Amino acid sequence: MQQAIGIDFGGTTVKIGVVEGSNVLDKAPPISTPDYLNSTELIDDIARTARDLMAEHPHIVAVGAGMPGFVDFPTGRVHNLTNVVGWRDVFLKKELEERLKIPVSVENDANAMAYAEWKQGAGQGYNHIIALTLGTGVGGGLIIDGRMARGANYVGSELGHISIDYQGRVGPYGNKGGLEEYIGNNEIAATARDLYRAGGSERAMDLCTPRELAIAANEGDPIALQVWDDVAEKLACGLVSTVFLLNPEAIIIGGGVAKAGKLLFEPLTQKLFSQIGEPFREHLKILPARFGNEAGMIGAANLALEGL
Amino acid sequence: MQQAIGIDFGGTTVKIGVVEGSNVLDKAPPISTPDYLNSTELIDDIARTARDLMAEHPHIVAVGAGMPGFVDFPTGRVHNLTNVVGWRDVFLKKELEERLKIPVSVENDANAMAYAEWKQGAGQGYNHIIALTLGTGVGGGLIIDGRMARGANYVGSELGHISIDYQGRVGPYGNKGGLEEYIGNNEIAATARDLYRAGGSERAMDLCTPRELAIAANEGDPIALQVWDDVAEKLACGLVSTVFLLNPEAIIIGGGVAKAGKLLFEPLTQKLFSQIGEPFREHLKILPARFGNEAGMIGAANLALEGL
Repeated sequence: MQQAIGIDFGGTTVKIGVVEGSNVLDKAPPISTPDYLNSTELIDDIARTARDLMAEHPHIVAVGAGMPGFVDFPTGRVHNLTNVVGWRDVFLKKELEERLKIPVSVENDANAMAYAEWKQGAGQGYNHIIALTLGTGVGGGLIIDGRMARGANYVGSELGHISIDYQGRVGPYGNKGGLEEYIGNNEIAATARDLYRAGGSERAMDLCTPRELAIAANEGDPIALQVWDDVAEKLACGLVSTVFLLNPEAIIIGGGVAKAGKLLFEPLTQKLFSQIGEPFREHLKILPARFGNEAGMIGAANLALEGL
Repeated sequence: MQQAIGIDFGGTTVKIGVVEGSNVLDKAPPISTPDYLNSTELIDDIARTARDLMAEHPHIVAVGAGMPGFVDFPTGRVHNLTNVVGWRDVFLKKELEERLKIPVSVENDANAMAYAEWKQGAGQGYNHIIALTLGTGVGGGLIIDGRMARGANYVGSELGHISIDYQGRVGPYGNKGGLEEYIGNNEIAATARDLYRAGGSERAMDLCTPRELAIAANEGDPIALQVWDDVAEKLACGLVSTVFLLNPEAIIIGGGVAKAGKLLFEPLTQKLFSQIGEPFREHLKILPARFGNEAGMIGAANLALEGL
């Protein structure tokens, strides 16, 4: 079976591994992203790491990268990484192909995650998928009629910017009421702190992470339960819009916030299904993602293989 | 050039014409929908009318119908017409093909309108289109990667149910904050009446139609101008969500409300473009629809020809 290198490029670390199907066969030590002040040196070190892996794994035939920002998919040009210094207009596909002499594909990280779930994960066999990743940001990917739907400039499927309130909180583009402004990690923590405070108790911010809030809710803490209900209500609203637009068969939800499991999925399913008509509900599944942290790496690698 | 019969099936009338390209060559007298209490008799009369047109126009090779409700596109089964008595689970394609002995296709009316604008109208040459029709209801159709995107059960592209407020007005499916609950004809009229009343003046409801509000706004009436600004704000919000999801090249807007022209398009464009990032804005056009009342007929007929 063909193997590819998958690069999961994040604001904190760049993770590089060898992927075969849905398995990560080998991983290099992560590279610390903020240690680099320009793209060239970071690309040099990514290429060096990839070459080491290629030397050990002779079946590697391609390299795929998943990037935290807008990518021009056909050319592999990275427009801009808002969380990484020195990444503006970087022709990453070309830069890596020159160094590695092997086909490279470059994709948005949420699209790579969606691709992994579609081809290898929870979305196998479906042709209409909304894949969502809930973390510090809210991202996603769309499969429409059996194809990745990237949009005219390949920058679509920004599920975090679906508006849930036309007069709501202002997001990074001046957009109002974007989902991410309510259910990103930090926004959930702020909601929790406010609800605890309104209930007459202070709760330290490091106990307001989704993980801690899930523990508290599972112990029956009514305010933590209320936080999850609030997250579900807002996420349901964004998904209602998406379902009416795209009439999907599967909504796949991953990322750190999704680890809350039934605390999120149960109220979400109830709130979503009570707001859509019968033909939309009929075949719709709401599914947890199969892959965790490795989704981006697996997806990026398999996208590179598909492009051969 | 091949000709087809286009059927524009509405809650008030069924309009039937002969279509060639973007031209309606001939029209039968409209059939009054509410005069029929069951689907069979209405289908009989539609077939009779179509046969008369076919006798006069020998180049007719197909029949297409655009329906105001959910349609299973491949089978031509009409699930349910909420505004027409006796239309539940009607196999319209089969019923008409049996009577007319000619290929029939059946589509949702907003999808038919979108198809007409894509193939013959304002959307020619674009591969990523959001088409919107603003009237009593708000409907739409989507072209994604050069194909009609209907969804898994062919019921997607319901742009009127995109939510603009997660705690907003309740729509027909229990959905909250659906665009249609704010900018449908009647809701615009109610908004106008409330604003006039709040401003200390009464305005008769028949002077609160989009048409009358456009006349008043063009005469400088500040409250009428405020109504159009409000419509633009809410529509912009729904479109922001759609743009972030689908990254279209063109948004095409038709229907009665769109006749307000720059009263709507100017504030809409300003509000939409100030809420989306550069790569989304770069190639995006907001365009008035080419076709008026004939869009559904033209689209349905051309869809039928495409299906041959």
